[in-house]
Amino acid sequence: MVGGGIGAFIGAVHRMAAALDGEIELVCGAFSSDPEKSKKSGAELGLPPERCYGTFQEMIKSEKRLRPDKRMHAVSIVTPNHLHFPPAKMALQNGFHVICDKPLAFNMKEALALEKLVEESGMIFALTHNYTGYPMVKQARQMIKHGALGTIRKVIVEYPQGWLSTDLEASGQKQAAWRTDPSRSGIAGAMGDIGTHAENLAEYITGLQITEICADISIFVPGRKLDDDGNVLLHFGNGAKGILHASQICAGEENNLNIRVYGENGGLEWRQMEPNTLLVKWLDKPVQVYRTGGVGDLYPEAQAHTRIPAGHPEGYLEAFANIYRNFAVCVRARLEGRDPDPLYTDFPTVKDGVRGMRFIEKVIASGKSKSKWVRM
Amino acid sequence: MVGGGIGAFIGAVHRMAAALDGEIELVCGAFSSDPEKSKKSGAELGLPPERCYGTFQEMIKSEKRLRPDKRMHAVSIVTPNHLHFPPAKMALQNGFHVICDKPLAFNMKEALALEKLVEESGMIFALTHNYTGYPMVKQARQMIKHGALGTIRKVIVEYPQGWLSTDLEASGQKQAAWRTDPSRSGIAGAMGDIGTHAENLAEYITGLQITEICADISIFVPGRKLDDDGNVLLHFGNGAKGILHASQICAGEENNLNIRVYGENGGLEWRQMEPNTLLVKWLDKPVQVYRTGGVGDLYPEAQAHTRIPAGHPEGYLEAFANIYRNFAVCVRARLEGRDPDPLYTDFPTVKDGVRGMRFIEKVIASGKSKSKWVRM
Amino acid sequence: MVGGGIGAFIGAVHRMAAALDGEIELVCGAFSSDPEKSKKSGAELGLPPERCYGTFQEMIKSEKRLRPDKRMHAVSIVTPNHLHFPPAKMALQNGFHVICDKPLAFNMKEALALEKLVEESGMIFALTHNYTGYPMVKQARQMIKHGALGTIRKVIVEYPQGWLSTDLEASGQKQAAWRTDPSRSGIAGAMGDIGTHAENLAEYITGLQITEICADISIFVPGRKLDDDGNVLLHFGNGAKGILHASQICAGEENNLNIRVYGENGGLEWRQMEPNTLLVKWLDKPVQVYRTGGVGDLYPEAQAHTRIPAGHPEGYLEAFANIYRNFAVCVRARLEGRDPDPLYTDFPTVKDGVRGMRFIEKVIASGKSKSKWVRM
Amino acid sequence: MVGGGIGAFIGAVHRMAAALDGEIELVCGAFSSDPEKSKKSGAELGLPPERCYGTFQEMIKSEKRLRPDKRMHAVSIVTPNHLHFPPAKMALQNGFHVICDKPLAFNMKEALALEKLVEESGMIFALTHNYTGYPMVKQARQMIKHGALGTIRKVIVEYPQGWLSTDLEASGQKQAAWRTDPSRSGIAGAMGDIGTHAENLAEYITGLQITEICADISIFVPGRKLDDDGNVLLHFGNGAKGILHASQICAGEENNLNIRVYGENGGLEWRQMEPNTLLVKWLDKPVQVYRTGGVGDLYPEAQAHTRIPAGHPEGYLEAFANIYRNFAVCVRARLEGRDPDPLYTDFPTVKDGVRGMRFIEKVIASGKSKSKWVRM
Repeated sequence: MVGGGIGAFIGAVHRMAAALDGEIELVCGAFSSDPEKSKKSGAELGLPPERCYGTFQEMIKSEKRLRPDKRMHAVSIVTPNHLHFPPAKMALQNGFHVICDKPLAFNMKEALALEKLVEESGMIFALTHNYTGYPMVKQARQMIKHGALGTIRKVIVEYPQGWLSTDLEASGQKQAAWRTDPSRSGIAGAMGDIGTHAENLAEYITGLQITEICADISIFVPGRKLDDDGNVLLHFGNGAKGILHASQICAGEENNLNIRVYGENGGLEWRQMEPNTLLVKWLDKPVQVYRTGGVGDLYPEAQAHTRIPAGHPEGYLEAFANIYRNFAVCVRARLEGRDPDPLYTDFPTVKDGVRGMRFIEKVIASGKSKSKWVRM
Repeated sequence: MVGGGIGAFIGAVHRMAAALDGEIELVCGAFSSDPEKSKKSGAELGLPPERCYGTFQEMIKSEKRLRPDKRMHAVSIVTPNHLHFPPAKMALQNGFHVICDKPLAFNMKEALALEKLVEESGMIFALTHNYTGYPMVKQARQMIKHGALGTIRKVIVEYPQGWLSTDLEASGQKQAAWRTDPSRSGIAGAMGDIGTHAENLAEYITGLQITEICADISIFVPGRKLDDDGNVLLHFGNGAKGILHASQICAGEENNLNIRVYGENGGLEWRQMEPNTLLVKWLDKPVQVYRTGGVGDLYPEAQAHTRIPAGHPEGYLEAFANIYRNFAVCVRARLEGRDPDPLYTDFPTVKDGVRGMRFIEKVIASGKSKSKWVRM
Repeated sequence: MVGGGIGAFIGAVHRMAAALDGEIELVCGAFSSDPEKSKKSGAELGLPPERCYGTFQEMIKSEKRLRPDKRMHAVSIVTPNHLHFPPAKMALQNGFHVICDKPLAFNMKEALALEKLVEESGMIFALTHNYTGYPMVKQARQMIKHGALGTIRKVIVEYPQGWLSTDLEASGQKQAAWRTDPSRSGIAGAMGDIGTHAENLAEYITGLQITEICADISIFVPGRKLDDDGNVLLHFGNGAKGILHASQICAGEENNLNIRVYGENGGLEWRQMEPNTLLVKWLDKPVQVYRTGGVGDLYPEAQAHTRIPAGHPEGYLEAFANIYRNFAVCVRARLEGRDPDPLYTDFPTVKDGVRGMRFIEKVIASGKSKSKWVRM
Repeated sequence: MVGGGIGAFIGAVHRMAAALDGEIELVCGAFSSDPEKSKKSGAELGLPPERCYGTFQEMIKSEKRLRPDKRMHAVSIVTPNHLHFPPAKMALQNGFHVICDKPLAFNMKEALALEKLVEESGMIFALTHNYTGYPMVKQARQMIKHGALGTIRKVIVEYPQGWLSTDLEASGQKQAAWRTDPSRSGIAGAMGDIGTHAENLAEYITGLQITEICADISIFVPGRKLDDDGNVLLHFGNGAKGILHASQICAGEENNLNIRVYGENGGLEWRQMEPNTLLVKWLDKPVQVYRTGGVGDLYPEAQAHTRIPAGHPEGYLEAFANIYRNFAVCVRARLEGRDPDPLYTDFPTVKDGVRGMRFIEKVIASGKSKSKWVRM
């Protein structure tokens, strides 16, 4: 693991997600840019001192020197955005598979370079757009793919949060500090941090691509340097229209990612904060409530990402763990020289990451543009 | 009453709303452009034959000839859009108060003419933007007005319906037929029929005015002549940003008008389909659930528009009746030469109607424009 | 109307419910046991002085003397429980139809006498167990009647309120005062006031009869003389088991009547505070959300009691108005010497009232009994 | 681990719960009463062959012979009810801490024997009444403990499931088979399997003890030998009244454990299927929505059992993991000879298990009794 030392949020999430299924073992790490802190973090996690490295360079070099059956099999990157590319590049070049937090990189240039590196190296690369790991998201995707709703006409994807309603970054809060700092976050704030999740979710569920956008990007908190709110009109490749809005100044909202999709015959509604329910609305019959692990026509893709019976709620960590589990299934199959079970090969890839970076680039450009539509 | 004959939807709504409080009596009508049908409708409603008129012109003329204590006091206009202006104009010019369905008129020119007529005549004019009649909408308005949320930053107002997902108008369904016909509905379809309700609700609750819009207007059903879907970015006078979307092709949606408003300190959420609940979200304390007639700090404006104790659900007709009741209170006060109770003077006026018509005009223009922002 | 003078709650509800459909006109009343107050109330309601009577006896006598086409057709009784029987008896004996608030009477003896009087007089008698007037309650009844759920196994009916959590009656609050006073309410408090609604709803929806009960009846507020809480085990005639609980000390609850019914194949759930939704749960397919006026297989009985399109919420007054409307349809048909439309003949009768009174008698007896089961 | 071989449900849950926080490592097991199956299960879990034991006796003996730093520290028992006591007894007697699935034992005699063994051995014993592991359950308990609701008056705890609506056991389904078999489950079916969870939850949240019960116990599915439904009236030690009902024949219900508690000042409502929300209802102010990890006055006990920020839903496995984590914290502190952090010492003990067994005994007795109340 690279990053995720004491006090980090997403590092602990990655570790719990990786541990849940007993498929992945944390064996070493470079948990902080401060070597002392890195080692201290590793010790707290129960790692042997010799595998708590001071830097990711040291980690990759040292691990590569170990016997294949003793070394790490993959690198998990859980650093801020500006530190995704260097360890990812080095890991891929040294023959390690990579699972990396989103967005893919600091900028488009890095993103394209990574895409090329993944292609050339042939290594497995997963990006933790974790919200696509939810069983009901997979059910929604399959229903649309199999034509249940007919041609898709309209998509509304929302991601309101409220935690940056004040200048929390001024208080030194670590999560707020790097996310609002252009030197660590890149050109976008909320649009990169959560807007890309919304973009990814919309394209994943509908199977469509956003082709044009028209964005209204704002900074509401005085003194902030990156966007904390954005409203975006969407055009999709098939003619569907849509709206994406994401915000970190919707005071009183927690982590309210949600999506509605409407086709000719009906619509779908999914809300991350009650993730085990998928509402399916029909033109000519009553709304149906699909449920994680529930009765009725659940696709194998939904069932394969459910661990416990219906009514035993699964949450964020389980969805996150689905990304890790599938990544592990694919890595293990590769190590064993066989094909993985196709039901467990579904995770966001470097290509999703490139699309996310393009979304960031274009949505910020559109926000500054006076003409209406910007092509993606 | 003008319009609202057999088979009409909104005419019956107006009659029930008017009847609920025992303040208003239906005394005469020209219920249809077909004199025979008008008379038959009146008879079914229990009116004496001599007051079932063949035309609104005949009604207004005949009633004016009656002794003041025998004649009607006000005209209720419940016709399609193209037939709002003629009876409204004649009624005002002949000294009758008017309550009229929305949108105000067929086009901007008529709207401005009506505004002038109302001003010159001094008559009372109410427009049935009925959704502002809900108690929790009034509570929301008062909370924002009194600063509970601080400066408003973001507004999301939605009005998805699904009933025009197919070309229902081809089947001869009366409601669908006139709403999709430019000669009766005007330049807009969904934007006029329900988009104006959304615009009115957003401005009513926030007390802000929309100053700029950027609209993506669509026709999804092949052969349809007027918009059945629209997504609109909003700028408000105080710097707040927002989104308005309204649609009649969101298959599976009923009448799902809803609004969320976020300020510096918290947010509000209200949904028309569960109208007795107002969620109030705070930056620093748990969400509160305000309820129609419920315990806690309800403003007098909310309490004055509630008829029964909390937990006894009030609905669409009661909210509609609040517009009629307040109109009646004002008409009665005028007849009795005194000021009405200020708690009961709140109803949409011709000025709201003019704003709605301007919204229609500008949103359609923006939909056709290649530049991003259109001023309202 | 008998009762319902200034300050009364349920009188105003009856008047709004009666007015909504334009089928019933309030023509006279004895609104209070205080003749002065009665006359003042009538004047406020816009009645002519000669039809604002000092007593119900005077009203019935005077009206009977009027020409048939001038006199009232029916009496609406909205007094506290101890004053249901005298005006009902006199009205029936003088040839007036009666619509009466629940519970039917002050005690079982009066109830049986009324049942006999209705039978002998042949007059129409409706009891306002208003909750059976909701469209989705009718849908639930029809679904069960037509076997959708298979044999019914379990019923849970709840009616928690919180408004009597303190000794509100000590403050002189009129509604609390008579409901907690044995001389006006009878032997039961909460069990009579709301427990009977729960009992009636359970029997109406399931079509089953409660045959045995086991009750735990409590008074929680010190000094109160009648029950404010009760928990009751139920046996139904077909072998189904159930629970009924009703309370007026569930602090923080509004008017939360709700019912769940489970059969071999599925279950139903309806909640009065969101009355336009009926959840239908299945053993082998996703939950369905039936909606008032909505798409899908709604029975004619549900559709006939809906006034406006789906998504335009109907509430308590509309359900109450359904009882009045059906009563009016039957009275009008009787006056015109024809059969009423069978879709509009459904309202609670004196027989439902007798069952309610028996429930009161038995539930209080069971509460005092040391043996487990009491037969109904 | 004892039990939890291939095909078991709760064994996998225990393993995921134990793994989540990286505090516990699965080192050995006797996963099945069939030694072959046990070894195969162990191999699939990645355990070395020498620690995949054929029987729990073998496991305990062999592990005891290992050096203290090499041997297992605790035994997790995840077998059907009739196989809780033997391994628990042997583990305690051989100096191993125990974490055991509920109910505690096959019968009261075993339960009391275990209680004594725990006391005498001084070993740590945890019982996985996992629902008390949810953060909002802990919040509810603390609010009541600190008097927020005043004296508790009424408790309603429900546990409806529908999965045994048919004779699933006849199909050979493993979960159904042992739960409906008196030789493996004990004297109770649903009352033992889920009724005890409801009893435990009610006593945990309120801090009160059930003192008297009156039960109506049923078998609905023909041929079944143990109860599949029960409705129970409750008396609590402080005078509060209540209802507990649990069922496995509520067709269409998933795992709908929920509880409502009412005191003099307000009420609480918590539903396991949306476990991150706690509704707090007040007599004199709007309902508040407390949320896992959310803003507002959360007690340290609630915060200590939350892993991720508000709006990132936590579920069943996380609550289950809280039991395991706290057990691990206590075992580790014991091993290190220090006191554990008091915030992490909260888990159900053998005493909760004894109360659960008494509940089973009494509720079945009450179901057969003709007198109303049975003392607990």
